[in-house]
Amino acid sequence: MPELRKDPILGRWIIISTERAARPMDFITPERTIAIKRGACPFCNGGEDMTPPEIFALRNDNTQPNKPGWRVRVVSNKFPALRIEGELNKTGDGIYDRMNGIGAHEVIIETPEHVVSLGALSENAVKEVVAAYKYRLNDLKKDKRFIFGMIFKNVGAIGGATVEHTHSQLIMLPTVPKLIKEEMNGAEIFYNYHDRCLFCDMIRQEQDTKSRIVMENDNYIAFCPYASRFPFETWILPLEHETHFEQSPDEDIPSFAQILLVTVQKLESILDNPSYNFVFHTTPFNIQKPEHYHWHLEIIPRLTRVAGFEWGTDFYINPVPPENAAQYLREQKLK
Amino acid sequence: MPELRKDPILGRWIIISTERAARPMDFITPERTIAIKRGACPFCNGGEDMTPPEIFALRNDNTQPNKPGWRVRVVSNKFPALRIEGELNKTGDGIYDRMNGIGAHEVIIETPEHVVSLGALSENAVKEVVAAYKYRLNDLKKDKRFIFGMIFKNVGAIGGATVEHTHSQLIMLPTVPKLIKEEMNGAEIFYNYHDRCLFCDMIRQEQDTKSRIVMENDNYIAFCPYASRFPFETWILPLEHETHFEQSPDEDIPSFAQILLVTVQKLESILDNPSYNFVFHTTPFNIQKPEHYHWHLEIIPRLTRVAGFEWGTDFYINPVPPENAAQYLREQKLK
Repeated sequence: MPELRKDPILGRWIIISTERAARPMDFITPERTIAIKRGACPFCNGGEDMTPPEIFALRNDNTQPNKPGWRVRVVSNKFPALRIEGELNKTGDGIYDRMNGIGAHEVIIETPEHVVSLGALSENAVKEVVAAYKYRLNDLKKDKRFIFGMIFKNVGAIGGATVEHTHSQLIMLPTVPKLIKEEMNGAEIFYNYHDRCLFCDMIRQEQDTKSRIVMENDNYIAFCPYASRFPFETWILPLEHETHFEQSPDEDIPSFAQILLVTVQKLESILDNPSYNFVFHTTPFNIQKPEHYHWHLEIIPRLTRVAGFEWGTDFYINPVPPENAAQYLREQKLK
Repeated sequence: MPELRKDPILGRWIIISTERAARPMDFITPERTIAIKRGACPFCNGGEDMTPPEIFALRNDNTQPNKPGWRVRVVSNKFPALRIEGELNKTGDGIYDRMNGIGAHEVIIETPEHVVSLGALSENAVKEVVAAYKYRLNDLKKDKRFIFGMIFKNVGAIGGATVEHTHSQLIMLPTVPKLIKEEMNGAEIFYNYHDRCLFCDMIRQEQDTKSRIVMENDNYIAFCPYASRFPFETWILPLEHETHFEQSPDEDIPSFAQILLVTVQKLESILDNPSYNFVFHTTPFNIQKPEHYHWHLEIIPRLTRVAGFEWGTDFYINPVPPENAAQYLREQKLK
């Protein structure tokens, strides 16, 4: 059973994943990167029996579950970081705190075609992927053991992908990740002082300044944040104050799919298909409509040259001013 | 001029390093890792005129600055993240905050021999490296613009090293890195409640439990922390309550050098010379002897398989329980 443990200094929960328990040998690979499986891909059309059974799928008419004919397919992670069975059990261990690793860990397979990034999908396909994200979050949040749902994506070996075929992941947690908690605290302090949402203020200032904007459409804005930690880091936010991604209006899915797809395609085009991650930052399920928190998506290209001591201090040196990154992204033409 | 910018949500300062300003092309390298220079190494004996002039060196008798004959040599970073010249100037930018990038950025070259890790040095050589760390911190802290001194080390391409030859770096900052601030806050809350140092308590519990201890000598303990974020993450702490690394007793340098060297050698031996980072976590200069904060060194092997969405959420999945890692490390025999 995996275990959640709390760092007593920082109050940060981490998962000790016994399901994936690794020995030193597992880390010693010739090129020190991840072996990405080519051929016999479990995420391709026809590979359905190589994955756990499907939990949800968007399918063509007259097709059977766990058979070809799907367009987006959701399955349990074969090596889940957390397990869905059991009661949540919190205990102390001397000065330390732990809980058992209750949660869910699903994989959203974005297409039956063997492509390696969401950037290769059609806008229609991305709409269906986003709809699947929302559907799964709304379904899983009915389980009251879970208070945070995290949707994220790892692309490329440096991005932590272990399967090449484009997919996203969903982790349901019985606790809130430290960074989300801190964002909510920071934004609440701002709100209490100014009576305004900090994120809404950021959007207004970015619209005035213009230099960090990548693009904007009817409902969303993409910009490189003022204090970007990483080169070409890009955030997407709803223009209206929205707190929970999974509660965002379904009629906005097309414009979200459009801004996400174009932003990813521009990053891939400028940076020659880099590894990247994205993560949705959204309000925990047990907090209703906070005036101070605004959901958003953070996209981080993984350009290894800059990785270093940052892990140890949460201090970052970014060699690309976000104004420069945004200009490259704005001006990049797509085929 | 580099610039420090503050993330308004998290209160985290980052450096926008204009000295290193990169274009997208700079990130597109065939293997997406760092080109490590072999041959004509500026850090080798005889390469002295390829580096900025030396600031400090431990030298053999009758040798000249910037000529061979040194054992440890400190120079300015050729591509400094921060600049030492100028007044510290803090300004607002709408809702954002920034300051000019005043600081220092030095390189500690640990040996004139071309070896790629501190683990290849003799215990005597490591003693001199540690003495150089302390000497430089104590010298630079006289400059009242600086309130935090960060010593860290990047080894291997994945660890962010751009020069292969073993070296450490020192960055003096006009602000405190977010993670250090958070550690101090967390430890202060514990202290205010319990009237004890949290780190001293952790040492006591680790000594009782034993399962996470890697080794212990007269003055220091090395253990894999209870909530390790990364496989084989190892911390070294002074057994006595000490707040500032640079004020630790000089007579303890030999035992610190011993525990550091042996720990690194064990990690390298078990994990086949992985990329790794280490970072000293120490009290800011402008805080005197806090009862609640205890300096320590965090060593993080960079085993890429586990890197992923963590950048986006500060949430970690660790496939190696620290008890297993510590057992491997305890039992590893060194040649």
